[in-house]
Amino acid sequence: MNRQGETVLFKNGPGIEHTYSIVGQKEGQGPLGQYFHELYPSAKAGEKTWEMEEAEMNELALQGVLHSGGLDKEDIDLLIGGDLINQIAPTNFAARTLQRPYLGVFGACSTLGVAFMVACMFLDGFYGNRAMVSTSSHYHTAERQYRTPLEYGDQYPAYKQWTVTGSGAFLLTREARVVIRSITMGTVVDYDLKDTNNLGGAMAPSAAQVIKTHLHDLNRGMNYYDQIYTGDLGSFGLEMLKDLLEQDGYTNHGHVKDCGAQLYDPEQKAGSGGSGCAASAVVLAASLFQEIAQGTVQKLLLVPTGALINQTLSMQGESIPAIAHAVHLERMEG
Amino acid sequence: MNRQGETVLFKNGPGIEHTYSIVGQKEGQGPLGQYFHELYPSAKAGEKTWEMEEAEMNELALQGVLHSGGLDKEDIDLLIGGDLINQIAPTNFAARTLQRPYLGVFGACSTLGVAFMVACMFLDGFYGNRAMVSTSSHYHTAERQYRTPLEYGDQYPAYKQWTVTGSGAFLLTREARVVIRSITMGTVVDYDLKDTNNLGGAMAPSAAQVIKTHLHDLNRGMNYYDQIYTGDLGSFGLEMLKDLLEQDGYTNHGHVKDCGAQLYDPEQKAGSGGSGCAASAVVLAASLFQEIAQGTVQKLLLVPTGALINQTLSMQGESIPAIAHAVHLERMEG
Repeated sequence: MNRQGETVLFKNGPGIEHTYSIVGQKEGQGPLGQYFHELYPSAKAGEKTWEMEEAEMNELALQGVLHSGGLDKEDIDLLIGGDLINQIAPTNFAARTLQRPYLGVFGACSTLGVAFMVACMFLDGFYGNRAMVSTSSHYHTAERQYRTPLEYGDQYPAYKQWTVTGSGAFLLTREARVVIRSITMGTVVDYDLKDTNNLGGAMAPSAAQVIKTHLHDLNRGMNYYDQIYTGDLGSFGLEMLKDLLEQDGYTNHGHVKDCGAQLYDPEQKAGSGGSGCAASAVVLAASLFQEIAQGTVQKLLLVPTGALINQTLSMQGESIPAIAHAVHLERMEG
Repeated sequence: MNRQGETVLFKNGPGIEHTYSIVGQKEGQGPLGQYFHELYPSAKAGEKTWEMEEAEMNELALQGVLHSGGLDKEDIDLLIGGDLINQIAPTNFAARTLQRPYLGVFGACSTLGVAFMVACMFLDGFYGNRAMVSTSSHYHTAERQYRTPLEYGDQYPAYKQWTVTGSGAFLLTREARVVIRSITMGTVVDYDLKDTNNLGGAMAPSAAQVIKTHLHDLNRGMNYYDQIYTGDLGSFGLEMLKDLLEQDGYTNHGHVKDCGAQLYDPEQKAGSGGSGCAASAVVLAASLFQEIAQGTVQKLLLVPTGALINQTLSMQGESIPAIAHAVHLERMEG
């Protein structure tokens, strides 16, 4: 069996060969600005609506990664992706343009983890040679859908996060420099939080649980990994995660960071940091992938985190279930 | 390589060992009423809202299939599912109760095909021994979300379909009586239709395309399969599919049927037939699975069809992309 405990092991070396990241203006002005591959020119640059703008960014990221690999879309055996918008509409529209076999996945902001799991099984099982993964999010589409339209001018609590405008895309093969060795898929965790502005708080327990399961399954300590990056807990959620890890004796958490919390400077007024399907995707595609490929980081545990919030159910008084998946990335030597 | 053309082949015999179907009153009174495992007592029987009712049906279907297999939830290595509701909320809530590793997928009413693809890769690659799949839909939740609340009393065009209230669940293993030999994953097809009441019309071209790709890849004629069942084209969409098949020389289509079109009697006033993620799931779980297991049908091509409609984008004037996946089910001899 290719598993240990709940953790799935990949034997045939599926991994990430090329990445591409495209972000909005605000993200481009943040601390990671220099690492992104492309800056999306401006709000509603070429599209009529925010939703089609997100679809265009998703498509540009996919085209960008194809170009990096010197490939045509016909070279791709499977496209996997998702986003935050109802029915993952932007990804569906990007897939319409790509015209390749397509599987849509949804795990809110943990979607990147779901997509990597599906892509790795596809490659590891020799069902194809090349898979592409993309996820996207967009500040304007997400705020309108999950909370209120921006024009209403709702107040912004300090613990609220800022949905990242952008998209990250990945080309996965069995001959990649950065391999995915194992994935621990999470279970749904619900701490009965109901504040739709506090998604970092809702997600922190799911991140803690999947990290502990992963380390326990593989009999590893926190230091096995050079870096552990959660997806989009934000700075408040990250503190909660560290508290939860400490409660179970995982005190050595200095190298636990959060993709979303890296994306904006304090003066950019982005609450407790970035969130959205694009948070982990653009940070991995831009800076983390390079760090692994160049050897600055040898082993990375990426933990995309998702708050499975639905506006109808929130308004009906239901709490916010959350899920996270732990993806073990490693530099292939030689 | 475990593929031929675009079609993925499974060598280690993943298949369906047990099924469970639960449906609403209207479906229970239809032509397939006697085959369903459970009848959901009444609208809002035990739950406060339609959405939590759908979540409960999804969960009951999963519990039902566990019970059929004499299993506890701890025996399940992976749960895969989805539904039509934004953020696949009912499935997320069912997964919260099940507390097993969970991957959410979305392909509108083609979701069953996506879930089977993921489950088969998981089992075929020996990442685990048992996977559970569930999909659900609900007339009231879907009408409110995709069109207008029922209380508005919108007129019902004859070609419109009736969203199936119900859920189907499946236990998949490598020692099943009904095996999944191959799956052809579809690409997104868009014929520029914009009428959100005519989803059968939007989906028919995607069904035609994936059936043709599947038969071409494996060098088979239509008669290789004893039955070909699309998911939820309804009677109008099914006629369109047959026209499209004929245009490409596939004239022998007498055994091409549609799950949705089987679910209601004409006097039940369900337009051109059932639709929704549950349409293909409950028909497969109730009657088709039994027919294969008993040998009445030896080879079945199941083609779950999905209209990737999003209400915001529909209102913005975008057309309806569609996708379908072809799943080859076969009786295991001996």
